[in-house]
Amino acid sequence: MASKCFITVIIDKKLHNTKAESVDLHRQNRKVATMNTASSPSSPETALISGTASLAPLIDITAAGMEETNRIIIDRMQSEIDLIPTLAGHLIAAGGKRMRPMLTLAGALLGKAGDDVMLNSAKLAAAVEFIHSATLLHDDVIDESDMRRGNKTASAIWGNEASVLVGDFLFARAFELMVETDQIKVLGRLANAAARITEGEIDQMILAGNPAAPVDDYYRVIRAKTAELFAAAGESGAMVAGADTAVTAAVAAYGMALGTAFQITDDALDYAATTEGMGKSHGDDFKEGKITLPVMLAWQDGNADEQAFWQRCLGEGDIGDDDLDSALSLMNKHDTIARSLDIARSHAITAGQIIADTASGTVADALITAAAFAADRTI
Amino acid sequence: MASKCFITVIIDKKLHNTKAESVDLHRQNRKVATMNTASSPSSPETALISGTASLAPLIDITAAGMEETNRIIIDRMQSEIDLIPTLAGHLIAAGGKRMRPMLTLAGALLGKAGDDVMLNSAKLAAAVEFIHSATLLHDDVIDESDMRRGNKTASAIWGNEASVLVGDFLFARAFELMVETDQIKVLGRLANAAARITEGEIDQMILAGNPAAPVDDYYRVIRAKTAELFAAAGESGAMVAGADTAVTAAVAAYGMALGTAFQITDDALDYAATTEGMGKSHGDDFKEGKITLPVMLAWQDGNADEQAFWQRCLGEGDIGDDDLDSALSLMNKHDTIARSLDIARSHAITAGQIIADTASGTVADALITAAAFAADRTI
Repeated sequence: MASKCFITVIIDKKLHNTKAESVDLHRQNRKVATMNTASSPSSPETALISGTASLAPLIDITAAGMEETNRIIIDRMQSEIDLIPTLAGHLIAAGGKRMRPMLTLAGALLGKAGDDVMLNSAKLAAAVEFIHSATLLHDDVIDESDMRRGNKTASAIWGNEASVLVGDFLFARAFELMVETDQIKVLGRLANAAARITEGEIDQMILAGNPAAPVDDYYRVIRAKTAELFAAAGESGAMVAGADTAVTAAVAAYGMALGTAFQITDDALDYAATTEGMGKSHGDDFKEGKITLPVMLAWQDGNADEQAFWQRCLGEGDIGDDDLDSALSLMNKHDTIARSLDIARSHAITAGQIIADTASGTVADALITAAAFAADRTI
Repeated sequence: MASKCFITVIIDKKLHNTKAESVDLHRQNRKVATMNTASSPSSPETALISGTASLAPLIDITAAGMEETNRIIIDRMQSEIDLIPTLAGHLIAAGGKRMRPMLTLAGALLGKAGDDVMLNSAKLAAAVEFIHSATLLHDDVIDESDMRRGNKTASAIWGNEASVLVGDFLFARAFELMVETDQIKVLGRLANAAARITEGEIDQMILAGNPAAPVDDYYRVIRAKTAELFAAAGESGAMVAGADTAVTAAVAAYGMALGTAFQITDDALDYAATTEGMGKSHGDDFKEGKITLPVMLAWQDGNADEQAFWQRCLGEGDIGDDDLDSALSLMNKHDTIARSLDIARSHAITAGQIIADTASGTVADALITAAAFAADRTI
């Protein structure tokens, strides 16, 4: 058991680092917000939703809940099989923005207060993070990715077998945590989200290699594989806190819109970001033949030669050394990265508007600026 | 939707075939039972538990419930993403013995009767089969197996990505089905089993390549990866039907013992069975470096040269063309396949005894003969 304790200490230390990094992220977000406001001072939509794009207020209002959530995460990823906390800890301690569990806690803050609500929402937040982590572990196996969040992936270190199985373990643990809340309807909501996520992932797999697919296919994929969990995360928090039906529905709709904005931004940044910023390699999606919005828009506006280029690279997977540069040139020609980011912003505005129409106060404001952040981030 | 309907019809047809095959299995089991009785006429333990080893009585008493369970399985593996029912249907329609869902239904028959119990136990039985199917899909990815139940594996046909994701989908659907029973304690029992199964699989992965490991490690692995689901399957059925606490506990303990017998038999048959009998290749475990009971017993009784042989083949994965034959010779020398099957029988006897001590009647008798079948089968 000595090694187990040792691992716990390591992870605990890493999570404390993550907490420290949250503060950095807090500062960084304010900087990002300033940058974005500066870079698009004339955007009336951005002003409409609050004038700032920042995760900081959401981090602030969920700080106490996230402390409890992180405690539960560490506690529940333990197992007699040492490899489980080692592997899970590698992914979880690496951080990420933790937007999903923060949405669960924020959703709960829109309902009734109480110690049991606090504990149950933290358990649900941990369950949501476990579902997300399981998805990431399986994604890395599927994508054969070597890097994630600036670190080597678990599959690159411990192999595919371990990553598939620890993903399964976290998924099962997520349901054990939900059971403890004794709220079967909430559990049903998250079980449904889990099924939808896998449908979205399979749908994405089918879409891969077809740059000529209609854009609606892309939206269907990202709603299921990404936005659904943001929606269920917030909604389950509101449900467990017994929030009004209208508020619960609004948080769910907000999560769908925010998640859509988040994924479109992710897909645009994959082509725009540097390795440092994303914590993963530049142009990964291109190498993997993923069909994302910047590519689809470039295909739609491309001439026959350009479409033949996309078909060769993404349809047939025949990618040469200079092809990523050529792809970026074509995206630049048709301005598809900026156009994708604009579309992401429109979804973020929708998300903010949904909350503004239903609630007010600190929590509502934090959700609105977080939605703007989802589209106006550089990481 | 035309293609979806088409797939449904195909699967429906296959499941009807499976049903027809069940009748064959029924007949075959009686034959197996006769064979086993004939081959070990002097075994007092076998006589103690009933004199017959057969799945037929369990198939008989759960026939109506399995019809409903199969209907639910077909219904709930549907998705707008056509690949999901196609891939899941390939595995599920291929059959298998369906012992786990039958145990759920039998467990329920030991409790209170009622239409809601009937429907809820069928939903749980389908959920149990989905959890098992998800595990098989992930196992085939991990083992890189090409054959399962006499058919090509899903991963060999559709690739690893699809198998991982459809496994995840079935796992999520299992929890959706459990939610519908509105019994959160039962759900908790199965969520716990799901976590334990993955722990067992990871434990097995760590054990791989170490033929010198103590036999207790093997028992720990198979209890978690196999017996736990048999236990939870039966127990959840008894729980949903409000069976007495003593009966519920007995069904759980029975499932653990039966599952242990089942896995030891499986591991012995892997070396003993022909390709036709097992529906998979002979000696698969040897090629994959799996450490199972017949190997561990041969290691324990082996001299230094023999241990060096096992270490080279299973420890270092350095396997030549004649090595499987050499392994079988060593197992034959130390009689480890027969000794493993004897140990399996002792667990089956324990299983039968647990039921005999707690319940009587048709259901109890069916469970007792099914336990004997788990150890005395050739398939």
